Amino acid sequence: MTIKRTLLTLFTLGFVLVFGSPATAQTVDSLPSWNDGKAKQSIIEFVAKVTENGSPDFVPPSERIAVFDNDGTLWAEQPMYFQVLFALDRVKVLAPQYPEWKDKEPFASLLKGDVKGALAGGEHAILEIVMATHAGNTTEQFEKIVKDWISTAKHPTTKRPYTEMVYQPMLEVLAYLRSKGFKTFIVSGGGIEFMRPWSEKVYGVPPEQVIGSSVKVKFEMHEGTPVLVRLPELGFFDDKEGKPVAIHQQIGRRPVAAFGNSDGDLQMLQWTTTGEGPRFALYVHHTDSEREWAYDRKSGIGRLDKGLDEAQAKGWTVVDMKQDWKVIYPHEKR
Amino acid sequence: MTIKRTLLTLFTLGFVLVFGSPATAQTVDSLPSWNDGKAKQSIIEFVAKVTENGSPDFVPPSERIAVFDNDGTLWAEQPMYFQVLFALDRVKVLAPQYPEWKDKEPFASLLKGDVKGALAGGEHAILEIVMATHAGNTTEQFEKIVKDWISTAKHPTTKRPYTEMVYQPMLEVLAYLRSKGFKTFIVSGGGIEFMRPWSEKVYGVPPEQVIGSSVKVKFEMHEGTPVLVRLPELGFFDDKEGKPVAIHQQIGRRPVAAFGNSDGDLQMLQWTTTGEGPRFALYVHHTDSEREWAYDRKSGIGRLDKGLDEAQAKGWTVVDMKQDWKVIYPHEKR
Repeated sequence: MTIKRTLLTLFTLGFVLVFGSPATAQTVDSLPSWNDGKAKQSIIEFVAKVTENGSPDFVPPSERIAVFDNDGTLWAEQPMYFQVLFALDRVKVLAPQYPEWKDKEPFASLLKGDVKGALAGGEHAILEIVMATHAGNTTEQFEKIVKDWISTAKHPTTKRPYTEMVYQPMLEVLAYLRSKGFKTFIVSGGGIEFMRPWSEKVYGVPPEQVIGSSVKVKFEMHEGTPVLVRLPELGFFDDKEGKPVAIHQQIGRRPVAAFGNSDGDLQMLQWTTTGEGPRFALYVHHTDSEREWAYDRKSGIGRLDKGLDEAQAKGWTVVDMKQDWKVIYPHEKR
Repeated sequence: MTIKRTLLTLFTLGFVLVFGSPATAQTVDSLPSWNDGKAKQSIIEFVAKVTENGSPDFVPPSERIAVFDNDGTLWAEQPMYFQVLFALDRVKVLAPQYPEWKDKEPFASLLKGDVKGALAGGEHAILEIVMATHAGNTTEQFEKIVKDWISTAKHPTTKRPYTEMVYQPMLEVLAYLRSKGFKTFIVSGGGIEFMRPWSEKVYGVPPEQVIGSSVKVKFEMHEGTPVLVRLPELGFFDDKEGKPVAIHQQIGRRPVAAFGNSDGDLQMLQWTTTGEGPRFALYVHHTDSEREWAYDRKSGIGRLDKGLDEAQAKGWTVVDMKQDWKVIYPHEKR
């Protein structure tokens, strides 16, 4: 081998080490928890056509924005939204400070263990519980409360930590998109400050890429130190029509890909898919009553009715959890 | 030379090519438009101590958030905020559609060329002008209007495009911080949708890292196509106490460095510097009446009074534009 040949070999080797080999990259399965089928194929084909150099549908990296709903799309949402379970736990913790709750609904029922009775008051009851448990402290205090809860609380039926009830196939989609230059955002009806303390660790999504509902906060000086105080007043409700509004406000460009699971995500998928150029929309359809839960058109939580019709009419990807996902949760993989 | 030595040399060369040479990196001046002095030194020392491995003040890349005011910090703001000049131009363009403006203040004075008379109505007059010129269209229509204006309009006294009235030394700070793993955000009292159409090209700051004031927008279906309609109603005013609130809402972590020029930035600098660990705050002080403008404690635009006192008391960096900056605008460099 001449020195010239050695040089050439080394440069080729160096190139492969630094930039990766196109030949081997294609044989690695980035979505190993997905069964082969239309859903998996549609994701891979979309990513290929917007990221491969020379593709007529090429999208520059700065415009590769992908948005994900959280409840029911990235983690489970049954038997009720996990943030409501957090609020119920908070009521118990806070009750000694509020003796009047013993005689006041929805708190009275809750404290007797009658969750159904407490939530009979509908949206108004939920809002009252959320405001009583999510406000009146500083943003730093609330962050600590969420961190403590998420690291200790267990799901009522699976008895697993909530952060283990995330969907392994969706974690793979998040990582796959990021490996292809996408910025991944969460756009959830859930509380922005309920998600940010753990979103980076669990999803790889940093706080500045988490969008959600919020209470108003107020800047105050406490003995010369500035704090942000959380007020018992809804600032923004990030659901339905609110999702495109929040995307516009916090991202400022239209996503090229959107992932949801309910009618609450429909406007986000509409807004995403009606932009110019290639677009992708995906609905997670909860069809697996054994490994997860099965619900759609009639469900109070995560209802998917109008969205399912529109997905079929528009040709959006619909994931059949039972058929398309080899595993649901990360622990099943082990 | 043996093959073994060749290999070693090549690997060293490859390392230098790919990762850069630490030895030469230190000799490159990242802030060439800054005169040597306390201000420049303070920036370089802060960046070194939070980014160098092994430093006791090391900040991980994910937490390297730097926030910049825009008007008077990244670009000029005299003889009035450039967005107000945009609004005045819009009044002239829109006047034929609103014949009633001929007899209605503040529009009547404006259309006669009497800007001072029009603005005599104070904040109310400005708000009326902004709402009349910034709302009633879709977000996409407004983006096009801003892009057309910014690419053609000229500053009243310098006759230069507004995007050439950005501060060269601050462009260098933005690029320097990004080269050291910082995420740079704009946090401005100006309109978020007035800045985003050009912030990436001019400042290297993508839309999702621009925070500002905004009107409310509403999701609507226009003949089956979703649009966001801009309403004549203030959604958020991103000034003073609003800046930490917006930083919390849109970034979700406390910055480690903040750059401003007026009392409107004071709360942002307070919020930034009272976080735990190393923090940096800088005020641009407009002291150059020849190359730019000189104004501070008594100015109606960009007043710097309380902020200047607090900067001195707290030891924040205060840039003396006349002394510290070799050039003000990019064109002076050529």
